[in-house]
Amino acid sequence: MREVSPILLDDNGILMNADGEPVEVEIHVAWHNFEIGRSALRTFRDILRTSHSIELVQTAAAGLDSPFFKELLDRQITLCNSDAQALSIAEYAIAGILNAYHDFPARRRMQAEQSWQRYPFRELSGSNCLIVGYGNIGKRIAKRLLAFEVNVSVIRRSSEELGGISQTGTLADLPVLLPEADIVVLACALNESTSQLMNRRTLGICKQGCVLVNVARGDLVDEHALLECLDAGKIQHAVLDVFAEEPLPESHPFWSSDRITLSAHTSNAGSGREARGDELFLSNLRALLAKGPLLNHVNSQP
Amino acid sequence: MREVSPILLDDNGILMNADGEPVEVEIHVAWHNFEIGRSALRTFRDILRTSHSIELVQTAAAGLDSPFFKELLDRQITLCNSDAQALSIAEYAIAGILNAYHDFPARRRMQAEQSWQRYPFRELSGSNCLIVGYGNIGKRIAKRLLAFEVNVSVIRRSSEELGGISQTGTLADLPVLLPEADIVVLACALNESTSQLMNRRTLGICKQGCVLVNVARGDLVDEHALLECLDAGKIQHAVLDVFAEEPLPESHPFWSSDRITLSAHTSNAGSGREARGDELFLSNLRALLAKGPLLNHVNSQP
Repeated sequence: MREVSPILLDDNGILMNADGEPVEVEIHVAWHNFEIGRSALRTFRDILRTSHSIELVQTAAAGLDSPFFKELLDRQITLCNSDAQALSIAEYAIAGILNAYHDFPARRRMQAEQSWQRYPFRELSGSNCLIVGYGNIGKRIAKRLLAFEVNVSVIRRSSEELGGISQTGTLADLPVLLPEADIVVLACALNESTSQLMNRRTLGICKQGCVLVNVARGDLVDEHALLECLDAGKIQHAVLDVFAEEPLPESHPFWSSDRITLSAHTSNAGSGREARGDELFLSNLRALLAKGPLLNHVNSQP
Repeated sequence: MREVSPILLDDNGILMNADGEPVEVEIHVAWHNFEIGRSALRTFRDILRTSHSIELVQTAAAGLDSPFFKELLDRQITLCNSDAQALSIAEYAIAGILNAYHDFPARRRMQAEQSWQRYPFRELSGSNCLIVGYGNIGKRIAKRLLAFEVNVSVIRRSSEELGGISQTGTLADLPVLLPEADIVVLACALNESTSQLMNRRTLGICKQGCVLVNVARGDLVDEHALLECLDAGKIQHAVLDVFAEEPLPESHPFWSSDRITLSAHTSNAGSGREARGDELFLSNLRALLAKGPLLNHVNSQP
């Protein structure tokens, strides 16, 4: 078996060996983990762009819409994406939905006002949820919602039936499935067919008072149309972790909307994510050395 | 089959027939539903106390620690309690836990300050949760937590193993199970052996930074000891729906604690509760008429 020498790329973009000494070496395997900063990322990409030795790139990203990944795939470099954050994102999504259903900000105000009164809330049980995208994230969201006795429907590339799922359809079925959904969760890839998926027309056919969750990409949503629908009460609440422009600009009206709960593209920041990511990389490193099958192997996916 | 004549007790304590005319009749079956007000409740109880015809009392209550229920049981009147609110309470409990794990108040403050920054959160996955009481409520909480890959342990009257549950024990096992729990949920009956269950000593052996949820009865908890543990950070957060004195007195320090999310004994107020309660009553009415087995029949329970 080949010997493995770990090389670290530090925050300043310097490659170091395990003893902390700068080195110049050929890189065969790269692990782009969750901790990499912006400047080191540039160096990391430059190294991969010029490398002739690189065999495997493991990224911590789930979505691969960045052009850099396309470069790697065009060069037929083996690329594996990550499902380590999927569990974090699923918990974030459910937490956001329950926060909207229970209106915790209102409950907190009642507490501040020492107001002792009945506090009715919507139940998840019996609600209809439409999940757009049924990869690692969508599946984990569905699993949790099913335990709450939610009727889960799914939009994905195939409309083949799925165990436990009420209805499955493709993007063509959006006009049928959207009006029934109390909750819409965007957990799909951003591409030509999903860009601006939630626009004035599709938001317009959503069920009155539905909750929208976007844990995928900002460009899936027409933000102006969403604001109008939130202001009109058509959409009761939006839980948004991603935006057309990130960081979200200071002047953006999303910041001040009571009907929006937002976060800084950080739905992936659950406490178990890094350990799961390291484990995934080490599995794939072992698989590469043993010439076994890789996990989350992007090149081999349809 | 016997004929059923529905009689309504209005808010002023007047018995009326289906046409809204006051009547004086013998009551055979009573449905104490979720909508009954305080003054009507007094009349309702007086009617039952003096009735010689009453055969079945269906209450909307889950916990039967009120002395009135003991009166009924002592008179060997058939009493059925309710599981219609169990699902609401389970959703409330999970929403409260996730609200604490994600610290939504802090997230809301970041949004108000237009602060774009990474927001790490604890994951439920891999957490240990101890549920005290494994009736209709505890079971539904467990089912939901298991979907989140939480390790669920249970304290109940028997330590017999349960499918999916990591460890089961009786109250005698509290000193072993409490120190391992990241989350402690009280969902048990209040009685001599559970009164002040969470006291200075038991709170003292809780895991540092754990979350406490009480959806059962206020007297299960020594409130002064809990406040000390919250202030010291020993307990990270408490989600409290029930209190030693209800309504919670104005001067009570719980109102102003950031480490407490409280509500007015209203965890049962989910949107599907009343329909489920009516359905339960009608099932039991049908069962009574058909001399079949009753649901949630308290007299027949061990």
